[in-house]
Amino acid sequence: MENNTILIKNALILNPNNFINKPQDILIKNDLISEISDEITDENVDKIIDATEKILLPGLVNTHTHLSMTLFRGLADDLSLDEWLNDNIWPVEANLNGYYCYIGALLGAVELIKSGTTTFSDMYFYMEDVAKAIEESGIRAVLSYGMIDFGDEEKRKAEIEENLQLYKNCHNTADGRIKVFFGPHSPYTASEELLKEVRKLADENNIGIHIHVSETQKEINDVSSEKGLRPFEYLDSIGFLGPDVVCAHSVWLSDNEIEIIKEKDVKISHNPCSNMKLASGIAPVSKLLENDICVAIGTDGASSNNNLDLIEELKTASLLQKVATLDPKVLTSDESLAMGTINGARALGLEDEIGTVEVGKKADLILIDTNSANMVPDSSNLSSNIIYSANGSNVDTTICNGQILMENRKLTTLDEQDIYKKAREALDELKKAI
Amino acid sequence: MENNTILIKNALILNPNNFINKPQDILIKNDLISEISDEITDENVDKIIDATEKILLPGLVNTHTHLSMTLFRGLADDLSLDEWLNDNIWPVEANLNGYYCYIGALLGAVELIKSGTTTFSDMYFYMEDVAKAIEESGIRAVLSYGMIDFGDEEKRKAEIEENLQLYKNCHNTADGRIKVFFGPHSPYTASEELLKEVRKLADENNIGIHIHVSETQKEINDVSSEKGLRPFEYLDSIGFLGPDVVCAHSVWLSDNEIEIIKEKDVKISHNPCSNMKLASGIAPVSKLLENDICVAIGTDGASSNNNLDLIEELKTASLLQKVATLDPKVLTSDESLAMGTINGARALGLEDEIGTVEVGKKADLILIDTNSANMVPDSSNLSSNIIYSANGSNVDTTICNGQILMENRKLTTLDEQDIYKKAREALDELKKAI
Repeated sequence: MENNTILIKNALILNPNNFINKPQDILIKNDLISEISDEITDENVDKIIDATEKILLPGLVNTHTHLSMTLFRGLADDLSLDEWLNDNIWPVEANLNGYYCYIGALLGAVELIKSGTTTFSDMYFYMEDVAKAIEESGIRAVLSYGMIDFGDEEKRKAEIEENLQLYKNCHNTADGRIKVFFGPHSPYTASEELLKEVRKLADENNIGIHIHVSETQKEINDVSSEKGLRPFEYLDSIGFLGPDVVCAHSVWLSDNEIEIIKEKDVKISHNPCSNMKLASGIAPVSKLLENDICVAIGTDGASSNNNLDLIEELKTASLLQKVATLDPKVLTSDESLAMGTINGARALGLEDEIGTVEVGKKADLILIDTNSANMVPDSSNLSSNIIYSANGSNVDTTICNGQILMENRKLTTLDEQDIYKKAREALDELKKAI
Repeated sequence: MENNTILIKNALILNPNNFINKPQDILIKNDLISEISDEITDENVDKIIDATEKILLPGLVNTHTHLSMTLFRGLADDLSLDEWLNDNIWPVEANLNGYYCYIGALLGAVELIKSGTTTFSDMYFYMEDVAKAIEESGIRAVLSYGMIDFGDEEKRKAEIEENLQLYKNCHNTADGRIKVFFGPHSPYTASEELLKEVRKLADENNIGIHIHVSETQKEINDVSSEKGLRPFEYLDSIGFLGPDVVCAHSVWLSDNEIEIIKEKDVKISHNPCSNMKLASGIAPVSKLLENDICVAIGTDGASSNNNLDLIEELKTASLLQKVATLDPKVLTSDESLAMGTINGARALGLEDEIGTVEVGKKADLILIDTNSANMVPDSSNLSSNIIYSANGSNVDTTICNGQILMENRKLTTLDEQDIYKKAREALDELKKAI
């Protein structure tokens, strides 16, 4: 990485639960935030950004995606998870290859950057091709290979080998922007043997784990009838859970399971739009937060959402908890903002690097332009203005690892129109192949 | 109105439940859609719009707003309806005047136009000042004065007189873009006498009615204990209900009330974001639709939402019904789109003029640019792409009554920056006056 300094002038900095009501200057040196103060006069910088009338936040953290599935946006809607997966998604996925996953990931990366997400945690196939897209796009990612064995020993070995190869080839690559996790798909698609092996390898190699747990009532019923335990109880009984496990969805939770999650410091990735669209259910997020459990946010894939706009997702999260509990005071805009930033960083084990705007942390920052029809007048409560009024289109500038990825809504690392063209062609080819 | 012709070329027309999978040309003459066909070669027009890669829809219809309250966006959040109104909104409203309502309405009009809404139904105060903003902005509106008497006879007479004056001065003005309804606030703030008088005057003058009904459990309890009947039963018992009554919210409904609504052909304006944010509850929309009741959509005021983006509102409506019923097949994107267009037109008694793209109807049209990160690849299901993937920022062009109000996201009738400045100043003054 070449030497690089950026000076951001006059930004209102909004950290989760900490807002300085006075514009600040921020100096970025290479990949790090080097100084924050009332005025930085250093003129000897490579680039000056005027952030007057803009809010500066930590880059958003999307903790559960299947980025290549952005190709399948709108492919099938208004269906149950079962019909959606079995009859629509899996037949198309059967014809996937590395190139399609690469193009899908590039398309997703464009959308992430344009809506203010700088870090995402992904689980899918052809992950080295996804890594290539991440390398090129400049964003930060935690990648895991979605391991499914359905109890087949040979498949299990191959799946684990695939995820280990991903680790060996991609972990800490792209100037450290790419980390690799294990991705056992779920307790109903990954066998007990696979889960135990993953736990062992995760401990040995200090690798985090990304898994779907308790998404639907059907899953609860299936796991309960097979194992005699609810999903989190089962995972706990085999020693799988720990602070390095990020569980997506986690919709249907008993009090005992919430106790287990709290005790084992398991991280939860809440996916409200997907859970609503697939009618999976409403996760008890406010109860989890009351129990000091780390709840982060995720969009899930764009084909069950159908976009990757994390600001929209955070609004939906807040509003859904309020109506589900009939208590308008739960999941405030401050709490929601924390879910989208520092909680995400904690979930991914990256809280020392990202999730807040602080000297010494990575320069993963976004600027939101408040001079927009949906954000005027600017409330004194900036988190409310962002969570409840804004959407991803209000993000003006996206910086990741000290590199500007978007300025004035123009991308710097990716060619939008070329990616759109290739994505359309890829989907056409995939549909023809069914 | 001067003579005016616009030719839109190569648009994919998406009507509610009717999509022609072949680009069409649309000729607008003055305020009306004059021709739709495969190719219109008339070159003798004032303006040609190239709609290649764009979806053309009827302008969206927002059936419940308090447009001037856009000034109060983010003023108070994460509170119950009671605390929000009593401790925050009403103290600021005490210092409102016509100028503030005019500026608030202009600010709201900017947001409506920029997010694709061409018609809205408003209830508030200083409505002649709101009418002035509508006249200038070029959008279409149904305006009602929010009548509250709390049983006070003198107040009642003054309130009715105010709404009648609004009718006399503004109904059918602005080239017919402004209609006036009666706006009795609710069954708990308007007395039985007021409601009966409104019903009588509505019949005599053929004026529609806009009212809040059954928003919160508290309202059900209060009305039930005072009247011995639930709100819709009470309104029915005094002969108030009919096909010209649009009821906002309608969250808490008994089976008997749903029967009454159906039998009297009452129109419902569903406001999911507001109902969620204020934790009012979840309206049984899919059950209402099953009963062939006309359900339209509304954002409510921007201070309980906190924006006026009707596409976001329609997505929330669909997703909320799916999760509330645990049935992913209810409130499909097609049904949602109908709620935002033709159902809104029907609710406002304007189905002969707006709500679909048809020859002979008013030229109230919007173009959505699908060449955007959150909408690629373009699904073959256009309504899914709009309802589930898009938001208001994807609207490229807004036309109302044959006049272009926005083209390539640039407003033609209003000065955005000037309005933002005045709105900020107005809110500052209002806050100081408390």
